[in-house]
Amino acid sequence: MKITLNEAARQCQEKDKFLVLSHRAPDGDTLGSAAALCTALRRMGKQVRFACSDEIGKKYEDLFSEIQELTKPEEGFTPEWIVSVDIADVVLFGDGLAAYADKVDLCIDHHRSNGDFAKYSYVNSAAAATGEIIYDLLRLMNVEMDRKIAACLYTAISTDTGCFKYANATSRTLRIAADLMELGVDAADINRRMFDTMTRARLELERRVLDQLDYFYEGRCVTMEIPRSILEETGAKGSDLDGITSLPRQIEGAFVGVTIRERKDGGYKLSLRGQPPVDCSAICEEFGGGGHKGAAGCTFDRGTSQEIKETIVAAVGRHLKALDLLEEQPMEGSESQ
Amino acid sequence: MKITLNEAARQCQEKDKFLVLSHRAPDGDTLGSAAALCTALRRMGKQVRFACSDEIGKKYEDLFSEIQELTKPEEGFTPEWIVSVDIADVVLFGDGLAAYADKVDLCIDHHRSNGDFAKYSYVNSAAAATGEIIYDLLRLMNVEMDRKIAACLYTAISTDTGCFKYANATSRTLRIAADLMELGVDAADINRRMFDTMTRARLELERRVLDQLDYFYEGRCVTMEIPRSILEETGAKGSDLDGITSLPRQIEGAFVGVTIRERKDGGYKLSLRGQPPVDCSAICEEFGGGGHKGAAGCTFDRGTSQEIKETIVAAVGRHLKALDLLEEQPMEGSESQ
Repeated sequence: MKITLNEAARQCQEKDKFLVLSHRAPDGDTLGSAAALCTALRRMGKQVRFACSDEIGKKYEDLFSEIQELTKPEEGFTPEWIVSVDIADVVLFGDGLAAYADKVDLCIDHHRSNGDFAKYSYVNSAAAATGEIIYDLLRLMNVEMDRKIAACLYTAISTDTGCFKYANATSRTLRIAADLMELGVDAADINRRMFDTMTRARLELERRVLDQLDYFYEGRCVTMEIPRSILEETGAKGSDLDGITSLPRQIEGAFVGVTIRERKDGGYKLSLRGQPPVDCSAICEEFGGGGHKGAAGCTFDRGTSQEIKETIVAAVGRHLKALDLLEEQPMEGSESQ
Repeated sequence: MKITLNEAARQCQEKDKFLVLSHRAPDGDTLGSAAALCTALRRMGKQVRFACSDEIGKKYEDLFSEIQELTKPEEGFTPEWIVSVDIADVVLFGDGLAAYADKVDLCIDHHRSNGDFAKYSYVNSAAAATGEIIYDLLRLMNVEMDRKIAACLYTAISTDTGCFKYANATSRTLRIAADLMELGVDAADINRRMFDTMTRARLELERRVLDQLDYFYEGRCVTMEIPRSILEETGAKGSDLDGITSLPRQIEGAFVGVTIRERKDGGYKLSLRGQPPVDCSAICEEFGGGGHKGAAGCTFDRGTSQEIKETIVAAVGRHLKALDLLEEQPMEGSESQ
């Protein structure tokens, strides 16, 4: 049942024992939103626990040490109100929290695709991050925002907008971030941790995948392969791969970047990134996938990486030609080889 | 002579023929500030020309095509008022504009180190970018801000703050950016051009320099060498090198990143980047250089790159030890070799 933020605020004020949930493979938004909400509820005298299916990544550890504490079981605690933050779909609870997927009382989220799995839902897709919604919620509940809460919310908003770089960042997003900075947040320190720090495994991964680029249609389409061998040899884990799919599209002149990543089971996961007027989701839909115009994906369960590359590059070529972005249409062959 | 922004506004309103100057190797701030000012002055019915010692980089071409037009000589035009924007020092006029260095009537800048070379100067080092000052100036002159001027100013501010990532971005910076977005600026498009686009030469350069990393003191200090051969083989030019010096410091655990770049004359330029509590300028001062705590540099005119690396790594080690960031102090030797 969809409710207003005012109703969500009223529920939070009335209940006493909360369990707050973040999505699997937790990012800055789900963690920052949860941490701000947990801290606020505790200030209001409530009992609060926190849970997440996966571990909190190293770069978030310092910022979110408080919710880490709240994951420890508390004797005799039975949650009265289960709140999910930034969870768009039941699969995103992850294995560890799967049992909660049909027990959520209040879902707070900003994903347009929200699966409406909870008893009560407040979903605002105009918000750049769930952190923006939590900011509004705390204001409605008259919670005094201090530097600690503000740092959590700034992290949530900054990470989900690529530091205000992406199209989801609105002028309102920037004004909220300005409010949070005026509460004493060390924004530069947070941003350095979030954006300008990489593991050695990530560095090694980048070095290796930069050897895997192929240019097509005079560089309008750039492909990048990530075979299992590279992941195994570099020791790169899930979080080390964050954003790597945006790399081929970043090359000057590229309208479409295609990342072809070999899966454990031998299949391939393709991630397409495009710039206007390209519609990546239209291309991926040809192969049973989908997404947004700027970012979409699909999977191939059979074929060699070379065959898959030829197939997707041909599809990209047809799309570029339909958009008049291509004069001739060389179907195959890499200019870089 | 230092003047207030009100006085600067009055001067701009009174004069009729302007020459606006940007600094050599022009960046988003000097170009965006100049473009916004030129456009505003022309709307006010003034005659305006623009000049810069170096060419406008390809990624700025679309945004700043208007000032490119204003570089063409206009017959019978003699400037009545020469305005420099974002130029901190006379050497930054570059060879092409050296003749103007002692002829500037009004200097508008945000660099604390401004050399005070002009007849009148308005320098506000609290501004994250000169674009912030131009925003205030246009407001004082009651210039109607439209989407075009707003896009120039957004670009100026966004580029000089690393998209609001660095410590110079204040809450006021974000509020100004929000105002500009509300004038219809396509911020995401600008940011994609400015931050998420790289030349093939830059890409190739990154691939090559990632092979040149060396780790010391358990990774607390990371060095990166850029020999001439890499620059020559990749064809990387000045703008392709932007920000490359921040790479070694970004590696998890690194307190200091040192870039050792071979110069044309055979000497070496060292760029240090550090995170608190490290003071890079203190380290560089030992070798006659300087800068800020977070970013500083020095040069070595003699010695091999290996000798220079050992010297600077030892100095970094002493600094880390003095800050209690180092338990033992292995003076030499790379862990990665």
